[in-house]
Amino acid sequence: MQFNTLDDIRSFCRDLPGGDDECAEAAARRQQNLTKPPGSLGRLEDLAIWLARWQRRELPRLDRVTIAVFAGNHGIAERGVSAYPSEVTAQMVANFAGGGAAINQIARLAGAELRVEPIELGRPTRDFTIAPAMDTADFLMALDTGWRTVPEACDLLVLGEMGIANTTVAATLCAALMGGRGARWAGRGTGVDDAGLLRKRVAIDAALKFHRSLLDDPLAVAMSLGGRELAAIAGAVLAARARCIPVLLDGFVATSATLPLARLAPDMLAHCRAGHVSAELGHRELLRELQLVPLLDLDMRLGEASGAAVAVLLLRAALACHGGMATFAEAGISGAN
Amino acid sequence: MQFNTLDDIRSFCRDLPGGDDECAEAAARRQQNLTKPPGSLGRLEDLAIWLARWQRRELPRLDRVTIAVFAGNHGIAERGVSAYPSEVTAQMVANFAGGGAAINQIARLAGAELRVEPIELGRPTRDFTIAPAMDTADFLMALDTGWRTVPEACDLLVLGEMGIANTTVAATLCAALMGGRGARWAGRGTGVDDAGLLRKRVAIDAALKFHRSLLDDPLAVAMSLGGRELAAIAGAVLAARARCIPVLLDGFVATSATLPLARLAPDMLAHCRAGHVSAELGHRELLRELQLVPLLDLDMRLGEASGAAVAVLLLRAALACHGGMATFAEAGISGAN
Repeated sequence: MQFNTLDDIRSFCRDLPGGDDECAEAAARRQQNLTKPPGSLGRLEDLAIWLARWQRRELPRLDRVTIAVFAGNHGIAERGVSAYPSEVTAQMVANFAGGGAAINQIARLAGAELRVEPIELGRPTRDFTIAPAMDTADFLMALDTGWRTVPEACDLLVLGEMGIANTTVAATLCAALMGGRGARWAGRGTGVDDAGLLRKRVAIDAALKFHRSLLDDPLAVAMSLGGRELAAIAGAVLAARARCIPVLLDGFVATSATLPLARLAPDMLAHCRAGHVSAELGHRELLRELQLVPLLDLDMRLGEASGAAVAVLLLRAALACHGGMATFAEAGISGAN
Repeated sequence: MQFNTLDDIRSFCRDLPGGDDECAEAAARRQQNLTKPPGSLGRLEDLAIWLARWQRRELPRLDRVTIAVFAGNHGIAERGVSAYPSEVTAQMVANFAGGGAAINQIARLAGAELRVEPIELGRPTRDFTIAPAMDTADFLMALDTGWRTVPEACDLLVLGEMGIANTTVAATLCAALMGGRGARWAGRGTGVDDAGLLRKRVAIDAALKFHRSLLDDPLAVAMSLGGRELAAIAGAVLAARARCIPVLLDGFVATSATLPLARLAPDMLAHCRAGHVSAELGHRELLRELQLVPLLDLDMRLGEASGAAVAVLLLRAALACHGGMATFAEAGISGAN
């Protein structure tokens, strides 16, 4: 295991590896010379420079893109907070294996390898309104699953999740670490009705009350109010940082999984970008808190890395321009007046 | 020529062909049965249904995607409204032919055929602060170039432009047809300095004054205050409608070219979507006026169809899901509670 104690995580976060400024500057200079008004490719230019920084090369590549989808089940589902029963988590994992889910289609289009990691689906976390969701061993094990899923060498890592009831988990993490109660953070998830939405708010408020003594400790919050697939995403974000691999985060749940880490180190998410902003209540506000500007805003709210996987296509467009365009000198084009 | 008089255009617009409601409904039903909560793919679902409506098939395709980029030169460039000299229009057309421009890279990535149509670059339109930009013959010829560029059969048409000084033309069209003066509509274009921006505002105001008697006639505005590449885009939009081909519009200039048509018929742009909203001042407001919701918002402002070409990738993602996902029944997944 990479981390044997919570303190191991804390000390890793105190000394995070950085990107390569020189490669980023070389990429920025290259952008200035391409046959277009400076800055006119907008965020496509920023993306090329960001990839250059974290891949540590002026001409970044997307030959090896890995999409990791972690799946978990949640005790809080017993509180009737989702429109679907917990069995659907395993059924969707089977659908991923069979190639029938949205992420299978988008991953193929995006030229990405899909890795699905179900984490102890037969043993849900505990209902966090009356107990810690996980104990330390459970939490570290899930975190380690995330860490181990990240390839040693990879050009881009895309992180997503599947887990019935996990928008309640995400909302609870946000409430615990950003303030506010259930009414501020509970959204419709997969499509709960008004009664389900109310149960969701009540569950969040109950969890905040039960765990009120630990809300100032981000890792205790991630352990006691989180979920296994969220812990795995946090582990994958740490592994990617250790290996200087750029990361695209998917929606509300995947982003919320990084919030405890961001509380440990202010530049924790420098190697991450938000693939999209989902339609789920709270995601926009969470992204603002984390200073992540989403690449897409398409009203998606499916999870399973689908939004971020679509955003991989934008990174490919950014690199196609960055690597393939002629310079003004090569094309014999007049400069600005 | 498809249109021999301006009245031919007006009468075409009085009886526009519609899409196929049954195909759209079949596509919408299909979306309801795929393995995801209904609506959770957001705008990707709408896009699949929109393509089904205009391609007239439940399972739309993107086998034949054409990107048409029209290029023109403008008398108004003499007023110092651009950061670049007019020679750059032809130089960029050569760059397109040589494969060195942004649109070449994005078109290849998007699996699209690129057609570039320079329209009489050696004979700029007249300076519209002191004369009509085009006469009727000139306008109809440019419109016809656009019409003829659209393939007889095509799954998607993407429309863009290149023309030094043409953001001034676009801003003038918006001012003429939506109200306001130069200060409301003139943006930085390729990057004019403050003095250039002031010259741009002055030019727009002068044009509005000179042509004040014709501002209530959309086609007269398109002819007298427009440009050849904009007229060609209008012609291509009409040809696509005649052939039920869905259209993605690029940025501020390409969108402004459709505004006179939209004034002739309220559902003129039903077969069109906005590929992106550009960073150019005025585009967001213009899109709102036309009730077009952009697919991307990436701060791009290059033109040459680049933003819309990136959006083709989103349409591919939409169709990959629409055609490739399993249904709930196929995957044996439990429905909502």
